[in-house]
Amino acid sequence: MVANANRTAPLDCYAGCIAMTGIESGCTIWFTGLSGSGKSTLSTMLAEHLRRHGARVEVLDGDVVRTQLCRGLGFSKADREENIRRVGFVCELLARHGVVAIAAVISPYRSGRDEVRSRIPRFFEIHTHCPIEVLVERDPKGLYQKALTGEIANFTGVSDPYEPPLSPEAVIDSSLQTPQESLSVILRALEAHGLLPPAPLAPNTIS
Amino acid sequence: MVANANRTAPLDCYAGCIAMTGIESGCTIWFTGLSGSGKSTLSTMLAEHLRRHGARVEVLDGDVVRTQLCRGLGFSKADREENIRRVGFVCELLARHGVVAIAAVISPYRSGRDEVRSRIPRFFEIHTHCPIEVLVERDPKGLYQKALTGEIANFTGVSDPYEPPLSPEAVIDSSLQTPQESLSVILRALEAHGLLPPAPLAPNTIS
Repeated sequence: MVANANRTAPLDCYAGCIAMTGIESGCTIWFTGLSGSGKSTLSTMLAEHLRRHGARVEVLDGDVVRTQLCRGLGFSKADREENIRRVGFVCELLARHGVVAIAAVISPYRSGRDEVRSRIPRFFEIHTHCPIEVLVERDPKGLYQKALTGEIANFTGVSDPYEPPLSPEAVIDSSLQTPQESLSVILRALEAHGLLPPAPLAPNTIS
Repeated sequence: MVANANRTAPLDCYAGCIAMTGIESGCTIWFTGLSGSGKSTLSTMLAEHLRRHGARVEVLDGDVVRTQLCRGLGFSKADREENIRRVGFVCELLARHGVVAIAAVISPYRSGRDEVRSRIPRFFEIHTHCPIEVLVERDPKGLYQKALTGEIANFTGVSDPYEPPLSPEAVIDSSLQTPQESLSVILRALEAHGLLPPAPLAPNTIS
């Protein structure tokens, strides 16, 4: 196995280079909020921003996850919790390998989110807040209308509970902020929590 | 956002360094075979070998996966296929981010494995073969005995079918080979398929 010894050499370089990107290791960024509150939009914008800055990023969007990981699960509390557990498991695996795993899932129950948080290091929760009246007025997919008339059952925020996080790492309000403003709030919070490197000092401020 | 421009610089270095490890991008290595045929042992040995040579590796072992991703799924053909589909989805995500994803799952149905293969680039299937008589004799967990007496139902190879792959990238026979010999077979096949760099030439063979 002498020949194989040569293969170990680049490992240090590899580790060193990951450190140089500034996004040293993976983390899990968890968007929670009502349908239409901005989870998908902001997770996409955040993913694009982070990719431009050298990070490996994967977005686990609720709708996609339902077909790939959670076929057969319904909307009972137990099924929603199981859904969240699986998304959390995948985020954990990805983050362990240096990926910024972004989950965009309604995840209405505090207990489910807190269970995931307790298992995953570098967990960053973002509450995408938006008053229900605004969501009902926007309603681009007509889902709230169907929920209000009872055509869709167990609809979070209408006929099913939503428990907002008590101390998320970031909160945005998509009724008051533009997506770009919300993204800035999120990026500043990520920096403050050490998950992104702080913006470097401008050259003329270095003494 | 001028400050952020600085953050993009290390990206080239990062990509360059991944290339230098020799394991340029992720892949999926899928062990299929009967219970006790060597999937877990070999996947662990392979993972350790690859990690020592600088790769990021994740092993998705059937028993672990059943509790994390597939709670509630049984052993019907449909449920087994769904199990495989989920493991495949997670392997795909990991491999996309440069991880060597190793699945060690019985995955008895050819259709399920081929569905996963058709979706995942750089898919490498290893059949861990072992004659059923040998497995029944080994039977360290007493599972075959329970299956033969009917205490466990739907047991692959006894009361449930196992469809061996028709053209796997590698086959090992754990009744004829030591684990180390099987590992060598697998490593040579990985090299032949371009998933590992070939062993470098010894210095004195370079003209």
